[in-house]
Amino acid sequence: MTRVLPLYDLQMLGTAVFAVTGVLAVNRRGLDVFGAVVLGTVTSLGGGTIRDLIIRAPVFWIVDTNYLLVAIVAALVAFSASRWIGSTYTLLLYLDAVGAALFAIQATEKVLGLQYGPVIAVSMGILTSIGGGLLRDVLAGRQTLLMSREIYATPILVGCVLYVAMGNAAMPHGTRLNIAVAVIFCIRAAAIRWHVEMPGWLTSRHEPE
Amino acid sequence: MTRVLPLYDLQMLGTAVFAVTGVLAVNRRGLDVFGAVVLGTVTSLGGGTIRDLIIRAPVFWIVDTNYLLVAIVAALVAFSASRWIGSTYTLLLYLDAVGAALFAIQATEKVLGLQYGPVIAVSMGILTSIGGGLLRDVLAGRQTLLMSREIYATPILVGCVLYVAMGNAAMPHGTRLNIAVAVIFCIRAAAIRWHVEMPGWLTSRHEPE
Amino acid sequence: MTRVLPLYDLQMLGTAVFAVTGVLAVNRRGLDVFGAVVLGTVTSLGGGTIRDLIIRAPVFWIVDTNYLLVAIVAALVAFSASRWIGSTYTLLLYLDAVGAALFAIQATEKVLGLQYGPVIAVSMGILTSIGGGLLRDVLAGRQTLLMSREIYATPILVGCVLYVAMGNAAMPHGTRLNIAVAVIFCIRAAAIRWHVEMPGWLTSRHEPE
Repeated sequence: MTRVLPLYDLQMLGTAVFAVTGVLAVNRRGLDVFGAVVLGTVTSLGGGTIRDLIIRAPVFWIVDTNYLLVAIVAALVAFSASRWIGSTYTLLLYLDAVGAALFAIQATEKVLGLQYGPVIAVSMGILTSIGGGLLRDVLAGRQTLLMSREIYATPILVGCVLYVAMGNAAMPHGTRLNIAVAVIFCIRAAAIRWHVEMPGWLTSRHEPE
Repeated sequence: MTRVLPLYDLQMLGTAVFAVTGVLAVNRRGLDVFGAVVLGTVTSLGGGTIRDLIIRAPVFWIVDTNYLLVAIVAALVAFSASRWIGSTYTLLLYLDAVGAALFAIQATEKVLGLQYGPVIAVSMGILTSIGGGLLRDVLAGRQTLLMSREIYATPILVGCVLYVAMGNAAMPHGTRLNIAVAVIFCIRAAAIRWHVEMPGWLTSRHEPE
Repeated sequence: MTRVLPLYDLQMLGTAVFAVTGVLAVNRRGLDVFGAVVLGTVTSLGGGTIRDLIIRAPVFWIVDTNYLLVAIVAALVAFSASRWIGSTYTLLLYLDAVGAALFAIQATEKVLGLQYGPVIAVSMGILTSIGGGLLRDVLAGRQTLLMSREIYATPILVGCVLYVAMGNAAMPHGTRLNIAVAVIFCIRAAAIRWHVEMPGWLTSRHEPE
């Protein structure tokens, strides 16, 4: 048994972490407590909600209200604590990488378990992982990550494909899960730490506007 | 019998009012008639649509096309009338408060009636009430209400919680409905009239950017 | 038999064309390959996804993964080719008109076939046709077409209504389909070619901000 935490706890952790990033991301712009809770909750639950609608599964936080409560409490804590935390931008990036890794692999696993094929599973892993952040940025009037050159989604794609590919390997389920999450987090963390951007040939020319 | 209007008429009124606000909110920015109808319709039906998708109920305006027709007609009327109405901003705020109050309580009631718990019911009341306006602001490129310090959502939260809490009281259904709608509208109207903002301790520091 | 291509091929063509427009529309702003694929896919599949959720049909690209694959490949091709294509804006507008016409009529047909009434069918034709582009613009931080005076949605409305109205006429199905698609494309293309805008009386006053 190689998992540090049971899957359910990992999911709650991812939910809380993403809710915190939702609040921190827009914190400097004069948010009130209600806006903080909505943005935290949307960031945390939005991607998985869209996934469940598309695959016609019951929406996960309707089935288990704990997800909703954890997101609300985490957003409230982040809102309160953010007064004493100074520059949180780097912390935010790493937390976001943790949440993205957890959500992506959990979603891939959920969708595979519902007998969908690998293309749909990987697509839903990516959608779940980036969907909440996209909704947060749109609602907060921020530029979405799609328009930046940051290496954000590529590690998620790599990790989800790896997780699917390892499905045939003879290894315990927990090991497979841990490897995929770790791969996503490590690539993303390295990109944050050393400011790696997408290479030019994978980027359209940037003309200043 | 304390209700002034039957529930169905109230729902149509809320639908029309929200469609009007959708048009007025973006009117000064050179909208054409089609954009007006789309924005009015999205404002009016958007929140309830997301709610119905999430709770897996049939989408209300597919089941009863009158909602769609009322929203379209109200948007067309607002678009035509807006030429002769000068400054509509304050009018818009009050109309929006009426629509928000009606939608929030109707949604809470609908979701409770489908045997969901109070947390989901209140969440769906808020989502239905603010969802359409959020979609409108995003599509129109306006700053969403989440990023402002206006007291917008707090009255909705108070009204929905009150409505759920009154469920155990021995009072006619119509009275309970009226009280909750009135509470939401009055708090919001007071905030509009006297320019009340969220107190500082419920707001993150605002750093001009 | 008047159809040039079978319906299925037409649908795939529309999917590819819309994916290309999604990439070209934001190309100058420094997109990376992943952002290009996401935006192309969302533009291409977004409108139909919302339609299927609302009418409670299985989401079309989950049922038939070819749609997803075509969108991804078309986005990748557009991303690669865009380096050698100079000014693509006009090309983009015409391609978009093709995609919009195909999607609108296909969606109207699909919804009519599911026994919905004409109001819902036309609404879903419009939603499918403009929904993906709206999502693209919101995610890319562009002004949505709703806020412009371009004649974009009116031809779609005309074509969808015409398609429904022709349902009673004694003509082959393919003819009816072709006429409606051609009407949408021709009106839109004329508006692009001669820079036709909505007449003033169908536009709210434009006050520069």
